[in-house]
Amino acid sequence: MSKELGFNAIEMQYLRHSLALTTAQVAEIGKVSEADVIAWEAGEKPAHMPVQKKLIEIDEAIEMQVLNTCDGIEELFKSEPKRTLSFVVYPTQALYAQYNPEFLGTLPLAELYNTSAWRIKKECKLMLEVDVVLVPLDFESYKAYREKDGLKESRENRAKWAKAQL
Amino acid sequence: MSKELGFNAIEMQYLRHSLALTTAQVAEIGKVSEADVIAWEAGEKPAHMPVQKKLIEIDEAIEMQVLNTCDGIEELFKSEPKRTLSFVVYPTQALYAQYNPEFLGTLPLAELYNTSAWRIKKECKLMLEVDVVLVPLDFESYKAYREKDGLKESRENRAKWAKAQL
Repeated sequence: MSKELGFNAIEMQYLRHSLALTTAQVAEIGKVSEADVIAWEAGEKPAHMPVQKKLIEIDEAIEMQVLNTCDGIEELFKSEPKRTLSFVVYPTQALYAQYNPEFLGTLPLAELYNTSAWRIKKECKLMLEVDVVLVPLDFESYKAYREKDGLKESRENRAKWAKAQL
Repeated sequence: MSKELGFNAIEMQYLRHSLALTTAQVAEIGKVSEADVIAWEAGEKPAHMPVQKKLIEIDEAIEMQVLNTCDGIEELFKSEPKRTLSFVVYPTQALYAQYNPEFLGTLPLAELYNTSAWRIKKECKLMLEVDVVLVPLDFESYKAYREKDGLKESRENRAKWAKAQL
């Protein structure tokens, strides 16, 4: 058992699961080979400290987003009796990168954004008694919705489209 | 998009990831086929409501364990200046079932117990500034440790063994 600081093999595994990432995705984020990640999780060698730090930063960014979003949702429902809300998530990396380029720096993969959305859903249910429904963006449906009403692409119109899916 | 209550495809996926389960393990817990679970997550059919309920019960049981354990740890560190603690986890289902039969009803798989341990680690770091190290039980090492000091198998002696691994 290593006496070094940092995560051991089983901790690396559960950190990865909690972020909904594959070993290949951890490798991509950490700029290492997938074989490295697999070796870390098998306890064959200690995980690179910069990769551990990067994953922790991501987890903290997610927790911060959960906190801020839930604060916003709490504010919203002060004057709104209906306790259901839709929240757009991204089924593919291409859609995520297209619509959320500003997030790519902190949460580089769609799975990380969606994990954040899942934690928001859970927290809203528990703390605010608000039902958040995760709505995966459907490019064609969203396009048709905008064309029908002559709407531009914007975060607000994505939210409107998502609300119409409930 | 279904107007029914309950989780949609992407929500089922992220619920599963948050519990560190495979599709095969969700099938095992839900007493359905893995093909069913895969179809639910692909949005081909709605997830069986009893399975959704079972997974939510498990998630709630984990959150309750996190809460209770962190309360206990907070109590412990009121009189203890050292802010590091080891916590035994189970690398295989066989070891988990052997040492924690009383947990099998609420958290049937080792992965669920370990997920709980991971969340305890995260919560303790954030709220209590206590470093929890997850120590996978090593049967041979634990056996040798007990034989050396003539110790019986018990939760307390497992904790002592884990502490000696730090």
